Amino acid sequence: MKLSILGCNSATPLENLHTTSQLLELKDHLFLIDCGEGTQIQLRRQKIKFSRIKHIFISHLHGDHFYGLVGLISTFRLLGRTSDLNVYGPKGIKEIITLQLKLANSWTNYNLFFHELESKTSQIIFEDDGLRVSTIPLYHRVYTNGFLFREKPGIRLLDNKKIKDFKIEPYDYQNLKLGKDLISEEGKIIRNDVLTLDPHSVKTYAFCSDTAYNDSIIPQIKYVDLLYHEATFLDSHENLAKKTMHSTAKQAAKIAKLAQVKRLVLGHFSSRYKDKNQFIIEAKSVFDSVELASDGKVIQL
Amino acid sequence: MKLSILGCNSATPLENLHTTSQLLELKDHLFLIDCGEGTQIQLRRQKIKFSRIKHIFISHLHGDHFYGLVGLISTFRLLGRTSDLNVYGPKGIKEIITLQLKLANSWTNYNLFFHELESKTSQIIFEDDGLRVSTIPLYHRVYTNGFLFREKPGIRLLDNKKIKDFKIEPYDYQNLKLGKDLISEEGKIIRNDVLTLDPHSVKTYAFCSDTAYNDSIIPQIKYVDLLYHEATFLDSHENLAKKTMHSTAKQAAKIAKLAQVKRLVLGHFSSRYKDKNQFIIEAKSVFDSVELASDGKVIQL
Repeated sequence: MKLSILGCNSATPLENLHTTSQLLELKDHLFLIDCGEGTQIQLRRQKIKFSRIKHIFISHLHGDHFYGLVGLISTFRLLGRTSDLNVYGPKGIKEIITLQLKLANSWTNYNLFFHELESKTSQIIFEDDGLRVSTIPLYHRVYTNGFLFREKPGIRLLDNKKIKDFKIEPYDYQNLKLGKDLISEEGKIIRNDVLTLDPHSVKTYAFCSDTAYNDSIIPQIKYVDLLYHEATFLDSHENLAKKTMHSTAKQAAKIAKLAQVKRLVLGHFSSRYKDKNQFIIEAKSVFDSVELASDGKVIQL
Repeated sequence: MKLSILGCNSATPLENLHTTSQLLELKDHLFLIDCGEGTQIQLRRQKIKFSRIKHIFISHLHGDHFYGLVGLISTFRLLGRTSDLNVYGPKGIKEIITLQLKLANSWTNYNLFFHELESKTSQIIFEDDGLRVSTIPLYHRVYTNGFLFREKPGIRLLDNKKIKDFKIEPYDYQNLKLGKDLISEEGKIIRNDVLTLDPHSVKTYAFCSDTAYNDSIIPQIKYVDLLYHEATFLDSHENLAKKTMHSTAKQAAKIAKLAQVKRLVLGHFSSRYKDKNQFIIEAKSVFDSVELASDGKVIQL
């Protein structure tokens, strides 16, 4: 699992500070999460092959989270893309994009599928053999979802030494990988866990932006390996956070602590703070395993 | 008159190559012409005070000419803008912008006026005491206008030496500035041109992008001081220019020559050409006073 932060500034892009966008590499997928203005430039900076992006998740319809989407969709067309593109986002996103394509007389030459979201409870929006993506309903001024990316447990791994010791035949490997016990030639049961090791650990990532403090998300993000949580404000502006339905660094840390996540990344900082280090100091008073997002930062798990 | 090129790449923005946008300073106005994705960042790079922009002219609804508009309008709101903003562009532009503001639940706190254009003949779209802006109907895949900015002739300038020699009283100055003759105390007519000098010369700028070769624009842009004309292709790709309804450098130069403009600036280059110098070489074979646009370039007249 590899997370690349393309932008994490709130409200407006600044010189060298981009609005929200992230790339998540997981099980051969390259997921784009949010797409602020200029995201296509950030993708070029990261030398990303555009055609690898097949699923784009948009949290909500504030401009700093999706104004780069229509340009990216257009650029895909200009680059001769042929593979399907799936866009998951709030109801209305299809109308915004298709209106612009229609008026430009520039329909995509690839299949563009919109999966419009309206549910106020969590739902699975993408699933395959390797992973599952669910929405995390957030609490913001407009309809907003975070996204939970959860790998599925893999097959059990053969313990090569034991396989040799017990002289297991290759035609039994598949059943062992699926967790089944074996019956030896002498009729004795050999328990699966004698011959196999646990699957590789399952990775989970929760993206939560934008949201007011909202502890109802905790059951859903419990124990995740990585939580990105917005921290638009510092505690000194808690009232402003409340009014605009954003979180403070302290609130984000509290969520991380209650959810017992392994690692917290803060982002979506208000431009009013020149010294971002204050966010770390404030969050660490509540939850230790915390770091700041920044444009171009890569987190490998 | 000062023209700042914010971007002049065609089709898609690249790292350090922005799509079309220009700022024209003329008679205390700061006009924005086209607004590709990332224009607000380019404005910040040029240290432009956002509130000075009160009129935005959009040539057509292809993304590389207006995908930065909704973000700029949003940023104006976030910065607490109070002054009116006027947007001139093809019919449909109002729906695109207002749909996005509606779904974001983020109406502007300033007056936002759309002046939608549909006419296929030139029309005056802005006028005040100092200047006039007219559309230049262009010939492209979608409805497109260029824009002609023309200063109005100023008042005549007093010739201070002659004013002294003829002992002209200050109460006569205003009539002289307006071009009227004077009658001296002895009843003799003193011709206005004896006492005054011609007004400062009137500046004109024509912006023509995007368009196929179209010599019907020549009467309108005749003798302009500065012509920006798109040159997406070189002559070796003339067929492609024809197909996509763009111009070659040679065609742009031909237009400049026929219109006897003073100075030609080429822009809207296709990314396929690494060596932009070829555009100059090709254009110079037809018209000598030619230069290339580039991000950040400033042309002072």
